Amino acid sequence: MATAGQVIKCKAAVAWEAGKPLSMEEVDVAPPQAMEVRIKILFTSLCHTDVYFWEAKDQTPVFPRIFGHEAGGIVESVGEGVTDVAPGDHVLPVFTGECKECAHCKSAESNMCDLLRINTDRGVMIGDGKSRLSINGKPIYHFVGTSTFSEYTVMHVGCVAKINPEAPLDKVCVLSCGISTGLGASINVAKPPKGSTVAIFGLGAVGLAAAEGARIAGASRIIGIDLNANRFEEARKFGCTEFVNPKDHNKPVQEVLAEMTNGGVDRSVECTGNINAMIQAFERVHDGWGVAVLVGVPHKDAEFKTHPMNFLNERTLKGTFFGNFKPRTDLPNVVELYMKKELELEKFITHTISFAEINKAFDLMVKGEGIRCIIRMDN
Amino acid sequence: MATAGQVIKCKAAVAWEAGKPLSMEEVDVAPPQAMEVRIKILFTSLCHTDVYFWEAKDQTPVFPRIFGHEAGGIVESVGEGVTDVAPGDHVLPVFTGECKECAHCKSAESNMCDLLRINTDRGVMIGDGKSRLSINGKPIYHFVGTSTFSEYTVMHVGCVAKINPEAPLDKVCVLSCGISTGLGASINVAKPPKGSTVAIFGLGAVGLAAAEGARIAGASRIIGIDLNANRFEEARKFGCTEFVNPKDHNKPVQEVLAEMTNGGVDRSVECTGNINAMIQAFERVHDGWGVAVLVGVPHKDAEFKTHPMNFLNERTLKGTFFGNFKPRTDLPNVVELYMKKELELEKFITHTISFAEINKAFDLMVKGEGIRCIIRMDN
Ligand SMILES: NC(=O)c1ccc[n+]([C@@H]2O[C@H](COP(=O)([O-])OP(=O)(O)OC[C@H]3O[C@@H](n4cnc5c(N)ncnc54)[C@H](O)[C@@H]3O)[C@@H](O)[C@H]2O)c1
Ligand SMILES: NC(=O)c1ccc[n+]([C@@H]2O[C@H](COP(=O)([O-])OP(=O)(O)OC[C@H]3O[C@@H](n4cnc5c(N)ncnc54)[C@H](O)[C@@H]3O)[C@@H](O)[C@H]2O)c1
Ligand SMILES: [Zn+2]
Ligand SMILES: [Zn+2]
Ligand SMILES: [Zn+2]
Ligand SMILES: [Zn+2]
Repeated sequence: MATAGQVIKCKAAVAWEAGKPLSMEEVDVAPPQAMEVRIKILFTSLCHTDVYFWEAKDQTPVFPRIFGHEAGGIVESVGEGVTDVAPGDHVLPVFTGECKECAHCKSAESNMCDLLRINTDRGVMIGDGKSRLSINGKPIYHFVGTSTFSEYTVMHVGCVAKINPEAPLDKVCVLSCGISTGLGASINVAKPPKGSTVAIFGLGAVGLAAAEGARIAGASRIIGIDLNANRFEEARKFGCTEFVNPKDHNKPVQEVLAEMTNGGVDRSVECTGNINAMIQAFERVHDGWGVAVLVGVPHKDAEFKTHPMNFLNERTLKGTFFGNFKPRTDLPNVVELYMKKELELEKFITHTISFAEINKAFDLMVKGEGIRCIIRMDN
Repeated sequence: MATAGQVIKCKAAVAWEAGKPLSMEEVDVAPPQAMEVRIKILFTSLCHTDVYFWEAKDQTPVFPRIFGHEAGGIVESVGEGVTDVAPGDHVLPVFTGECKECAHCKSAESNMCDLLRINTDRGVMIGDGKSRLSINGKPIYHFVGTSTFSEYTVMHVGCVAKINPEAPLDKVCVLSCGISTGLGASINVAKPPKGSTVAIFGLGAVGLAAAEGARIAGASRIIGIDLNANRFEEARKFGCTEFVNPKDHNKPVQEVLAEMTNGGVDRSVECTGNINAMIQAFERVHDGWGVAVLVGVPHKDAEFKTHPMNFLNERTLKGTFFGNFKPRTDLPNVVELYMKKELELEKFITHTISFAEINKAFDLMVKGEGIRCIIRMDN
């Protein structure tokens, strides 16, 4: 590309201050350094994690910053040592990486790369501790190594998943974070046997993706549990067959589920971040074979409490990070699952807006409207 | 047999009262009823569970009772409907059963049979709610369906494992309970990969069997953890390569283990029954892939507490009952493991006494001396 090795000037949505609307600016995007990739972002979407760090409550604020971590784009140029991707490749940026060298990357089970594990406090590249994004020479901080609310961004190659160029980026861009997290929690971790009963706690984007995963795995009953009954209608599209609103009952959810299922569900996937839901999800999997999977990010002071007999009665409790997907190795296969029409992504996309309207996506999410809002960078 | 269908008069060690020495009596053993088996016990051994229910602290006492649940014997006669075993078969009595009909028995993963799951309060046969053991017409209660401290006993066929008649019953009798529990916790549940590092919390009979299981599975480092340093010498024979006594450190065991292992052990197996050890065993398996297995029976008011991030960092916590072995299906294979000399049982047997001396076995166990004491019924 003619732009390789040059600073690119482009539009980006900059968060100058916590909780204030993003402002569209012209930013300088430096060329990628060793092991880095510069990507032209075509589509991006918004996830709760962006909103959470943009609101920056109870956090060390890192501003000015460019948020965004769910996206699809095309490689513009690569830095020294990059051999896995080349200009023109279609890619998904990911907030966590896969160096392929550390103990975690070498383990068949873990995706918690020692080098590139998510770091929400860092606003710079790990290579030289500097930002590649600036305005008039003043650095703008990166967010989780992705910063996709920009027409161009620079990332570590270990966080870039190269995918099938035939895949429509305006759909598969939602696989960068929450949808893959819920999907993987079901298909990689809970692994419901065909014909089994699965409980999904929390029917936000992550929980709906977990339901979709249970459906793909062949579960025959998928029980959605949410405090917000508005979620139920939508959840049917994702395979949920039954619903429980804990507010409708004057006994613990554990008992309600036990009655519905003759003793407990075969699998449960917790996608709320609420500690009570985590405990409920565990305690009401069936003894003998039940597996509960925690996905939601808990409050820092949360404490998981249960009687140890619940374990001794042969229940299993696991947690997952990014649905146990290794970003570079596994995301291309998730894209193929969509290409084969086994995974349905369209139903997650409830809104589409232009880049100029990005603050609308924040409004929708804060109001809890819809699931995913796609932001088209080309207007 | 000439005795089939007849009441058999034989010697048994009867516990008349909680905590009082057993007394050798002549008892009447009624013929087995439908789905029952009468067994001539040749060897039995003592486990903590016998002592616990004999002491009967904080329990509804069930006396007079015949204890004993680790044993080896030969089928004398069978009741109506019994087709799986026949007179002359060599068998191991088991305190928990396998009906082969219930949801648990049909599940590949569970051994918690709905019909024959351990019940420590029941002192009678499940068929007719009566005892088969009596003295002068006065019933003597059964214990966990086994009551092996008697020359003859009657059991439900679902709790009887038929084994290779070549196997020496004076050795394989220890597979009825604790040794299989620890062994199975490692080989069936923790499943340490070859070359992995395993921590064993508690080096009693169960923990030593868990170490033996880790050794058989090919773990290369086996770290034994016990508050009693006397256990360490013995534990070397069972594959333990390193030891930690929490009392020798002024920091939490979790930290000591993290330093020894570059972040955590691959697997841990808790065999103490102590809630702190349970939490430690879980918190210091490695993130990304670590699996902790709980075996010890906790205090009824115990509470398992941990920060949920310990799960989200991709740790797994499971519990096991009888090492996840299905008694009838799997114990014969454990016996074969011994016959192939992969499993070493001799080292668990530290004492051998005659039936008349049975109270000595209680003394040894109360004092914490040795591992297993074999009681020879033939004197
Ligand atoms: N582990 C990961 O890699 C990863 C990645 C992305 C998101 N997450 C986490 O997953 C969780 C869900 O994310 P989301 O975007 O779907 O959130 P969301 O807020 O859209 O959905 C959460 C849902 O849970 C429901 N809920 C809350 N408390 C509940 C309770 N006690 N019982 C039943 N339902 C309850 C809410 O009503 C809501 O519908 C969050 O905690 C998020 O941080 C984890
Ligand atoms: N789940 C099952 O099916 C099953 C079957 C048999 C026994 N058990 C249980 O397994 C446990 C062990 O049985 P056992 O016969 O080996 O008992 P044991 O008393 O012989 O051994 C327990 C060992 O743990 C040590 N210990 C206690 N607290 C500790 C701590 N905080 N940290 C480190 N070490 C500690 C003791 O010093 C002792 O050496 C018991 O709780 C028993 O009830 C379970
Ligand atoms: Zn790595
Ligand atoms: Zn996200
Ligand atoms: Zn059964
Ligand atoms: Zn026992």
